[in-house]
Amino acid sequence: MPFQRMITLTTDFGLTEHYVGAMKGVIYAINPTVQLVDITNAVQSFDVLDGAIAISQAYSYFPKDTVHIVVVDPGVGGPRRPVVANIGQYTFVAPDNGVLSLVLEREERALVRHITSEHYFHQPVSNTFHGRDIFAPVAAYLSKGVDASKFGEEITDYTRFVAPRPKATAANTWKAIVLKSDKFGNLITNIMPKDIPQIFDAQANGFKITVGKAEVTKLCSSYGEGAQGELFAILGSTGFLEISSNKGAASRLAGADKGSEVAVTVAE
Amino acid sequence: MPFQRMITLTTDFGLTEHYVGAMKGVIYAINPTVQLVDITNAVQSFDVLDGAIAISQAYSYFPKDTVHIVVVDPGVGGPRRPVVANIGQYTFVAPDNGVLSLVLEREERALVRHITSEHYFHQPVSNTFHGRDIFAPVAAYLSKGVDASKFGEEITDYTRFVAPRPKATAANTWKAIVLKSDKFGNLITNIMPKDIPQIFDAQANGFKITVGKAEVTKLCSSYGEGAQGELFAILGSTGFLEISSNKGAASRLAGADKGSEVAVTVAE
Amino acid sequence: MPFQRMITLTTDFGLTEHYVGAMKGVIYAINPTVQLVDITNAVQSFDVLDGAIAISQAYSYFPKDTVHIVVVDPGVGGPRRPVVANIGQYTFVAPDNGVLSLVLEREERALVRHITSEHYFHQPVSNTFHGRDIFAPVAAYLSKGVDASKFGEEITDYTRFVAPRPKATAANTWKAIVLKSDKFGNLITNIMPKDIPQIFDAQANGFKITVGKAEVTKLCSSYGEGAQGELFAILGSTGFLEISSNKGAASRLAGADKGSEVAVTVAE
Repeated sequence: MPFQRMITLTTDFGLTEHYVGAMKGVIYAINPTVQLVDITNAVQSFDVLDGAIAISQAYSYFPKDTVHIVVVDPGVGGPRRPVVANIGQYTFVAPDNGVLSLVLEREERALVRHITSEHYFHQPVSNTFHGRDIFAPVAAYLSKGVDASKFGEEITDYTRFVAPRPKATAANTWKAIVLKSDKFGNLITNIMPKDIPQIFDAQANGFKITVGKAEVTKLCSSYGEGAQGELFAILGSTGFLEISSNKGAASRLAGADKGSEVAVTVAE
Repeated sequence: MPFQRMITLTTDFGLTEHYVGAMKGVIYAINPTVQLVDITNAVQSFDVLDGAIAISQAYSYFPKDTVHIVVVDPGVGGPRRPVVANIGQYTFVAPDNGVLSLVLEREERALVRHITSEHYFHQPVSNTFHGRDIFAPVAAYLSKGVDASKFGEEITDYTRFVAPRPKATAANTWKAIVLKSDKFGNLITNIMPKDIPQIFDAQANGFKITVGKAEVTKLCSSYGEGAQGELFAILGSTGFLEISSNKGAASRLAGADKGSEVAVTVAE
Repeated sequence: MPFQRMITLTTDFGLTEHYVGAMKGVIYAINPTVQLVDITNAVQSFDVLDGAIAISQAYSYFPKDTVHIVVVDPGVGGPRRPVVANIGQYTFVAPDNGVLSLVLEREERALVRHITSEHYFHQPVSNTFHGRDIFAPVAAYLSKGVDASKFGEEITDYTRFVAPRPKATAANTWKAIVLKSDKFGNLITNIMPKDIPQIFDAQANGFKITVGKAEVTKLCSSYGEGAQGELFAILGSTGFLEISSNKGAASRLAGADKGSEVAVTVAE
């Protein structure tokens, strides 16, 4: 069997139309035996941060050399560049709009190229669906062993944003935010243990987290420790602090959602 | 080509986040050429019965020896055990919370083991996402031919619940329930032909089924037999009686949903 | 490796139940190594036109000889026939209800057969789920190289509908419709450039498109050209004119949806 790399898809194209199917068709027409895996195609529409979170939470579990397609691309057809990026052990194909920022935060090595070799594109190239016309075929050729250098020149001025971080507002208080509310209603904040270690330290004197209409003062180590209807803090599998509820949607109970402010106070 | 078993996924992790993608990455990193198939990842959150229904309706169509991952796991990180179960011709990987109960009802042979061999786990093991850290890698090693006995000792006190069954309330009356409302709005009840054969018998004297605000007295053998807006009973592909409507959502027409009571009276 | 054809799925069976999983199980049990690809399983329930649009927008990107399963089948179990159709370079398996009409519009060659060879079916055949019992196994055998002629006799009276087309209502006015609103809220109309070339001609004297409560007079060539909250016309990747908004849902802004009337006037 010839050398072959897996391809994953992280997009906001949704599941109700033909968009993802068309991308897959283009890929399989170029490489019929590739292993093609959906990470998620239900990133919130136009939401580059939501896409950046999704890919950053999944890419590293895949085999070395996997090609990750990441398309959340409100600027499609405009001046934003398509890029192919070797980051760590993986190759990413994406619009140059920051959607790879959270992956770049986690990795040391990155070599980003502006995709310009149009003979690899699916012709004619539309102005509204580069997922099908540029990103899918470039990923397919990468999966067949075409080197990233064939697609264009290296660039260093690619777009990166810094993910929102908790901010200390006084000696023992911080402002953070809800990065997203997941399918279970877990409110995934942007707080990592290193940011406010006192929350996670059983020897510390306690904390109060305010989000939406809820005040949370309990840390659990598993969802089942919470009483029904109770909100608690928990270190999620994402590495971030979550506000959660046992068999219930914390988002609904707290009246909070993506973007909601999270205020933290720790006792001295 | 080496011997290899297919893996399926039935979970409540949803389609909008990275969760299922991360599980797939873990699996492919262990077994890059495995055939990995989604049954559904949109089981209702925390709803073990809903997951039990989904897997019980799909598992038996797959090739012998398929490894079925079933993760609806509100007790993750708590005392509930992870299990690997040889049931009939298939192997299941799941939390020990009853999610395999409806499969067990259909099969004679079952050998259930408590998964304890941590060297097969994805490290570090989180307290909130054993789908990624335990169930995915165990399934991947099973697909490569590692024997179920390698993962832990047999247990016999595993969790089983009995699915809700119709109850006779008088000589000719029964109480049943709606197990679920599907994407089309079909109300799938827990009534099987053997429970109330009179409903399905053209020689019988008729029946009346009350569900939500609807009274149903007609049995159809295909959806197209119903008039527009009419509700009727039909033997569904699940083996259960459904209350349905031709090109319409019975759930909306009847004002009923999962858990709604179904009252049946048959004429003498 | 033996000759093998890819199989795709376009259905309205949804993602929340076991239906698609059961179909996949049936297929893999017959052909365990087939490449099986979802185009979409979230076609609007019972909506044959929506399914026809989805498959017509995706099928041609797949490798030659791909077997496309298309099941939007409100008439299941009734008199409508199951068919296998060689159309252009592809083979389609579908109910004979017009769901292939938009594919047939695009291709010259079509040979349609009524599927009658019951020994290829999954037994027992239900009256409500031919996706699992007829279409899945027939596609699986096709993927293994069984010739279409084995499944039944050619028919020429198969069902075709003509997709709704824009109608000239006066010298410079047309009535068109919204075919669908996609996940982004783009209103995909049934207007192609050949229908009203003046909209797309920069040398023309302008146009006014009324849809819902919106009046649109601007043509953009990419989504990013629009101002926030502005509605504009754009040639979509489907080949149809869309009414869209930059990072916003045109459907919500215009108060329009699938089936909404689109009135076009061009200046003389």
